[in-house]
Amino acid sequence: MAVQTVANTGNPTIDLGPAAALSCRECGHRVPLGPVFACEECFGPLEIAYDFSAYDTEELRKRIEAGPANIWRYAPLLPVPADVADKPNINPGWTQLVKADNLARELGVTGGLYVKDDSGNPTHSFKDRVVAQAIEAARAFGFTTLSCSSTGNLAGAVGAAAARAGFRSCVFIPHDLEQGKVVMAAVYGGELVGIEGNYDDVNRFCSELIGDPAGEGWGFVNVNLRPYYAEGSKTLAYEICEQLGWQLPDQLVVPIASGSQLTKIDKGLQELIKLGLVEDKPYKIFGAQAEGCSPVSVAFKEGHDVVRPQKPNTIAKSLAIGNPADGPYVLDIARRTGGAVEDVTDEQVVDAIKLLARTEGIFAETAGGVTVGVTKKLIENGVLDPTKTTVVLNTGDGLKTLDAVAGTGLTATIRPSLDSFREAGLV
Amino acid sequence: MAVQTVANTGNPTIDLGPAAALSCRECGHRVPLGPVFACEECFGPLEIAYDFSAYDTEELRKRIEAGPANIWRYAPLLPVPADVADKPNINPGWTQLVKADNLARELGVTGGLYVKDDSGNPTHSFKDRVVAQAIEAARAFGFTTLSCSSTGNLAGAVGAAAARAGFRSCVFIPHDLEQGKVVMAAVYGGELVGIEGNYDDVNRFCSELIGDPAGEGWGFVNVNLRPYYAEGSKTLAYEICEQLGWQLPDQLVVPIASGSQLTKIDKGLQELIKLGLVEDKPYKIFGAQAEGCSPVSVAFKEGHDVVRPQKPNTIAKSLAIGNPADGPYVLDIARRTGGAVEDVTDEQVVDAIKLLARTEGIFAETAGGVTVGVTKKLIENGVLDPTKTTVVLNTGDGLKTLDAVAGTGLTATIRPSLDSFREAGLV
Repeated sequence: MAVQTVANTGNPTIDLGPAAALSCRECGHRVPLGPVFACEECFGPLEIAYDFSAYDTEELRKRIEAGPANIWRYAPLLPVPADVADKPNINPGWTQLVKADNLARELGVTGGLYVKDDSGNPTHSFKDRVVAQAIEAARAFGFTTLSCSSTGNLAGAVGAAAARAGFRSCVFIPHDLEQGKVVMAAVYGGELVGIEGNYDDVNRFCSELIGDPAGEGWGFVNVNLRPYYAEGSKTLAYEICEQLGWQLPDQLVVPIASGSQLTKIDKGLQELIKLGLVEDKPYKIFGAQAEGCSPVSVAFKEGHDVVRPQKPNTIAKSLAIGNPADGPYVLDIARRTGGAVEDVTDEQVVDAIKLLARTEGIFAETAGGVTVGVTKKLIENGVLDPTKTTVVLNTGDGLKTLDAVAGTGLTATIRPSLDSFREAGLV
Repeated sequence: MAVQTVANTGNPTIDLGPAAALSCRECGHRVPLGPVFACEECFGPLEIAYDFSAYDTEELRKRIEAGPANIWRYAPLLPVPADVADKPNINPGWTQLVKADNLARELGVTGGLYVKDDSGNPTHSFKDRVVAQAIEAARAFGFTTLSCSSTGNLAGAVGAAAARAGFRSCVFIPHDLEQGKVVMAAVYGGELVGIEGNYDDVNRFCSELIGDPAGEGWGFVNVNLRPYYAEGSKTLAYEICEQLGWQLPDQLVVPIASGSQLTKIDKGLQELIKLGLVEDKPYKIFGAQAEGCSPVSVAFKEGHDVVRPQKPNTIAKSLAIGNPADGPYVLDIARRTGGAVEDVTDEQVVDAIKLLARTEGIFAETAGGVTVGVTKKLIENGVLDPTKTTVVLNTGDGLKTLDAVAGTGLTATIRPSLDSFREAGLV
């Protein structure tokens, strides 16, 4: 991917709340806020550096608790202006943290098991959280077109948020996606361009477009707006802790695609500790992959620091990134916190989707099958402690991956008579 | 349908909060709380009579505002025990009331236009609200199996809620439903029985089953639990008013299937007025149907008090009830409040789905296309006042009726090159 290293497109008058600058995750080099994503010194990824110095813990807690029932209750901790809740945006978040007592019984968890169910977001995946941030950054930088490369969830989230917020959108997808995903991305009325090629070809094209005059004034949510976009995942950490009564869970099971979500959840937890909003105590983060796309899991088990790319082949398509950008950071975090990275087969993914639906009435997309399946496996292997408070993420909706459970169907077919009903043996 | 007229299966020790008795909507005859739905005197529909006499307005308002971000914040006004939020249930509600400024501009609404978007519920339709009530009634009456007849949304809502709350479920559907709907209903692991026949045959079979020993101990959410179930729709009225800052909207546009939802929204608004939670001022309720199933709209326009049944033929299948039980009550309310009942063609439904998606990033199911389409038509006809505050309901999710917008697709297909992109004329 072409690397954009503009030194300073930041504007000192830009108001993105507590966001003070961009800082390189590798070398710490700082640049002003702007639509850049790679360090000019070392090509490392840029992320947001905040100034939280003025906050009083109890005042902040009260301010958050009095905020709206969406991610903007955490506006003081995000790269967004203070009046963000009044601007047109998709307003995701504050999704249910479900106390999963039935699932806990089946898995033998006694310490409290919770499912953070992000299928309740506006377009039914966690992508709404990150896109909502990118919208505010795009507004601040004067972009009028929002774009991304996507294979599904992100396309819908960008299309919907752009429509609400008054941006033009132009989204790029492989031309041969399933019809259902195309409809979901197209219905919001933005431009939807099919690229003759696979997802890698789409990505490569987008990188070219960013450097070309044709892409001028375009905010690519997962490229030149990535530092802002990625921060949206912190809100999962904030919500989980607040919903637990301002407590850290002992263990979290998080899906890995690029790895960005897992690293930002860790960042969010660390911020809450530093701000005094939760007690400083150990927590473990576990990463979950599908066996058919398990580069981080393989590296974890082999004790490597680098992640060898794979060619994905799994039904968990929303996690199918063979060369995850944040893979090494995920390995760091899993090892530092005493967690692990594990993977499950597609068959185990399907079983886990059904298990979660049957026990908790939550119909997860395949990514949710991956986290629940990995949780089960980690308990069976003695890696995850069933006596500790555990939070499992479901980041998407089963309605978007119906094919995974297409085998599910009628228990019986009967004639409309009581005799026929009795014959079916259901009473 | 067989009418169950058990005089008194109620138990004085049953705790359903402020619910005091069942009262006949037609003759006012009262019976104790129990799993009955028709008056033993006149066969009229039974509904919940409450005792709200102990409430102080300001204390109640504070109690509600301090409650959870779901329908249980209104527990003091629902037939549920006071500790309902601690019981396993699906916990729907507190969905977004979207200030639809873009849609308002397109429709010429200047008085404030809002979309109450119930696609954010756990199984992505308003049915979660009513099923959540039925669950609590089923618990109170000692039922262990939950059942219903359904063609889609309700089956999923019952399956999910039963799983979470620990009930067995056995849902009846026509055997030839679309595969997607079958999967959605089956994934929660309950019994799902296909009936060889149409929806009317399914309904008739369920009525037989209720009177048979085979159906003993079964709670049919939309039959013998209907008085409790139906109250869930009141929460739409409560939320709309609270989200408007404890104000009544001037105009509401509500879809009509059986008509129950519209009548309960009116009941909810009346309760808020009587309790002093909102100022007593006029409001108008407009009912929305699809032309292909418009028995109430036809009766309204012809000035009739009775509703002549129709054979439904529309893409708005979740509203396709040809003989709506609450049709006469809907006519009463539309006329009493100064509203109206209107219908739109399937083509207008599809256009309205796209309009809402394009302007507000909300992907509605066909029922949402009906309400938005009817709103547009009522404004064009001068029936709905664009200078007044108007709330339009979207009661379901576009992901469940993808076929309606299947024609939506790619803007362009290009090769992965900038030249090909430029040739497509998108910049």
